[in-house]
Amino acid sequence: MTTLENGPILSATNKSDKMDKIVSLCKRRGFVFPGSEIYGGLANSWDYGPLGTELKNNIKQLWWKKFVQQRDDVVGVDAALIMNPKVWQASGHVATFNDPLVEDKETHERFRLDHFLEENGVQVAGMTFEQMVETLKKMGLRSPKGNELTEPKKFNMMFKTNLGPVDDEDSKVYLRPETAQGMFVNFKNILGTSRKQLPFGIAQIGPAFRNEITPGNFIFRTREFEQMEIEYFVRPEEWEKWFEYWLDQQKEWCKEIGIFDQAVFIEIPEADRAHYSKRSIDTEFKFPFGQKELYGLAYRTDYDLKNHQEKSGQSLEYTDPQTGEKVLPHCIEPTWGVSRTFLAVLTSAYDDSDPENITLKLPYKLAPYKAAVFPLLKNKPELVSKAREIYENLRKDFMVAWDDRGNVGKRYYSQDEIGTPFCITVDFDSLEDGAVTIRNRDTKQQERIKIEEVRGYIMNQLM
Amino acid sequence: MTTLENGPILSATNKSDKMDKIVSLCKRRGFVFPGSEIYGGLANSWDYGPLGTELKNNIKQLWWKKFVQQRDDVVGVDAALIMNPKVWQASGHVATFNDPLVEDKETHERFRLDHFLEENGVQVAGMTFEQMVETLKKMGLRSPKGNELTEPKKFNMMFKTNLGPVDDEDSKVYLRPETAQGMFVNFKNILGTSRKQLPFGIAQIGPAFRNEITPGNFIFRTREFEQMEIEYFVRPEEWEKWFEYWLDQQKEWCKEIGIFDQAVFIEIPEADRAHYSKRSIDTEFKFPFGQKELYGLAYRTDYDLKNHQEKSGQSLEYTDPQTGEKVLPHCIEPTWGVSRTFLAVLTSAYDDSDPENITLKLPYKLAPYKAAVFPLLKNKPELVSKAREIYENLRKDFMVAWDDRGNVGKRYYSQDEIGTPFCITVDFDSLEDGAVTIRNRDTKQQERIKIEEVRGYIMNQLM
Repeated sequence: MTTLENGPILSATNKSDKMDKIVSLCKRRGFVFPGSEIYGGLANSWDYGPLGTELKNNIKQLWWKKFVQQRDDVVGVDAALIMNPKVWQASGHVATFNDPLVEDKETHERFRLDHFLEENGVQVAGMTFEQMVETLKKMGLRSPKGNELTEPKKFNMMFKTNLGPVDDEDSKVYLRPETAQGMFVNFKNILGTSRKQLPFGIAQIGPAFRNEITPGNFIFRTREFEQMEIEYFVRPEEWEKWFEYWLDQQKEWCKEIGIFDQAVFIEIPEADRAHYSKRSIDTEFKFPFGQKELYGLAYRTDYDLKNHQEKSGQSLEYTDPQTGEKVLPHCIEPTWGVSRTFLAVLTSAYDDSDPENITLKLPYKLAPYKAAVFPLLKNKPELVSKAREIYENLRKDFMVAWDDRGNVGKRYYSQDEIGTPFCITVDFDSLEDGAVTIRNRDTKQQERIKIEEVRGYIMNQLM
Repeated sequence: MTTLENGPILSATNKSDKMDKIVSLCKRRGFVFPGSEIYGGLANSWDYGPLGTELKNNIKQLWWKKFVQQRDDVVGVDAALIMNPKVWQASGHVATFNDPLVEDKETHERFRLDHFLEENGVQVAGMTFEQMVETLKKMGLRSPKGNELTEPKKFNMMFKTNLGPVDDEDSKVYLRPETAQGMFVNFKNILGTSRKQLPFGIAQIGPAFRNEITPGNFIFRTREFEQMEIEYFVRPEEWEKWFEYWLDQQKEWCKEIGIFDQAVFIEIPEADRAHYSKRSIDTEFKFPFGQKELYGLAYRTDYDLKNHQEKSGQSLEYTDPQTGEKVLPHCIEPTWGVSRTFLAVLTSAYDDSDPENITLKLPYKLAPYKAAVFPLLKNKPELVSKAREIYENLRKDFMVAWDDRGNVGKRYYSQDEIGTPFCITVDFDSLEDGAVTIRNRDTKQQERIKIEEVRGYIMNQLM
């Protein structure tokens, strides 16, 4: 297998029946398609289809509204994906953003050393690179095909490309491996233009790229992904308070999007923390293929601003407007993965307790369509035109589906499977009483409601 | 100058007073900052600051709502940025996505041949590469520094990188140079999951990357940029009708965002059209630095689907659900640049007819803040708490600014400069009569309005 072909969607050890069903639903209903599929795909890349694009946008917009637009103390940025390479020297990525790698001497297949050891029963948490190498040698492990392995090497995970027409060292740049540096590098400009006082945060949503050796598990680990991230700047002596605050905020977010019950909050021991972090708590989630990292929260001290101040020669100090005192702020970093959120939301929402009526119990706010409108019969123009009127009116405010195929029962099932909260049917009585039947996705209950009240009825429940 | 340093923001020939003012406003108020600025910038890369991020998001969301969510016949996708390289072979980008380039033999500076000829008074429109080379030689042109030039070469503008740990030809991939192929490659999956019938469109908003030799004019031409694009699939015999339809839609969009008066619609003669296009109309805009391309509209025939069908071996035919007849759809492609829209909107909105009171007359829908709330005096707790209540209440629905510095007149000027449509002042009378002063950005008129009516007053004008 060359690096460009598509591997199996789920790694063999992590296969699960529920995951297969979710992947299949995603493909069948237009949430997620394999990337470049007509060409045999491309090494774990994924394209979001019509419904997946809406769900993903809804997640991002809800996050932005909650953590940026409705707060006084957080502002947004949208930084370039390709930054000056000096940024990645200062941040430590050029020197230390490595995966440990071994290669099968015969087939030249490559494996991540830590994953490879874990699959052979080794607890690698807390191990240094040297300890992993030693363990590998002690155990005398061979590749899955039974061949000898090369000496483990460190492999930098940043994608490299060249700016301008000449491909040489001078023109080499990196695709950003994280959004965070976009906030640190703009710290001075934000400080100068936004009049924010400590504590305050800078937020960003956008793509990042990591040349992972073993991506996998559907959209869980991919080489390009989107992050939603905040760098929250505080006075050094207040970091503990704000760390707790952002942990609470991450928990509240999990509740808001319906994934809290399967979330686990793990204190990361010192040996496993990034070198710049004084405290970290990971939010893990019980995915069908195992409990895995979903979000992160780290106290990064003044590591980043200090490095950028030194390397750029620009002062990144904050001046207290009252006292005139200067301070280099410390930083709390809560971070969220977009596609992992997408997958956690789908996992929590997926309900096939009635296998004939699979229901995606998405939070109403996140559902691609908020409502669907049906004329009872498609060949009755008076029903169709009344239904059409309701449809056109509702979709000024939110996404609405239209379905006139088959019978109403089938249409309910079809909408349940994509998580549409409300189905509205126009029948012959509607022409007399000016009312429609509204059916709820989760309770399956039906109510009769005046047409002019439908919009308000739905809007109230979307809040 | 190495390729990684920042050149001048505006090319010397295109300098304009108004443009300087817009660039300066963008930096001063947090719309757009030079990318990686603390490290001296990076070759015409730009970061969007707090207000720029909101304005850009508002443009994208308005477009998405209008052209995807409120239409029956267009669905969205969000495809991976790195696609299987076979896609770019089939699309013709590997073979033909080239810029013609000449180099100064002494300094090794490189210039785009077509731009270089234009700057030397040659009309290159319609010229082939060979004709440009001949003209260059006939004129005996030398570099701006007076040195000899190399033989012109074709330079592929796609950024290259490598997937996986080995950097060789087998792992070479491209950053997508356009969003369009994401729609063509997903055509089959969309057809199979969305039940759309001809005519229908697939839309996408997202980043694309072109290794331009001479980017420039602020955010007008950058190496990474975002596109908003629709591939609209039609029956071959109906292309002319739908071409006209989408031209109208592009005009309507220009009106909606307030840029129509400075837009010009240009029929592109055959010699200047892309090889796959049977008809093209560019929307040009009178930027301060000249009339330049803003949007495109092209009839792409069945060029793309036919190529992908041949190269992938997968049928991309559409089957008519009534007649069973099979047809390879033809395609109309309207395309919009996000940052060019941003710049056109700023250009049209910028009003310094009163130099003391610069006003950004943004369409209300696009303004970062829809309203600002002021307590008349910041040291009167009863005014502050009443104003705070209004502020908290309004921002459930839209972005609201808070300002309690200086006097009200200065606050008006400050909000005018960032385009906030409504300023709401809570004064001592407010505590008696439950009313506030609302002042309009464009008319500068003030009205007295009951507090409970403020939200409705603003919402009505945002529609």
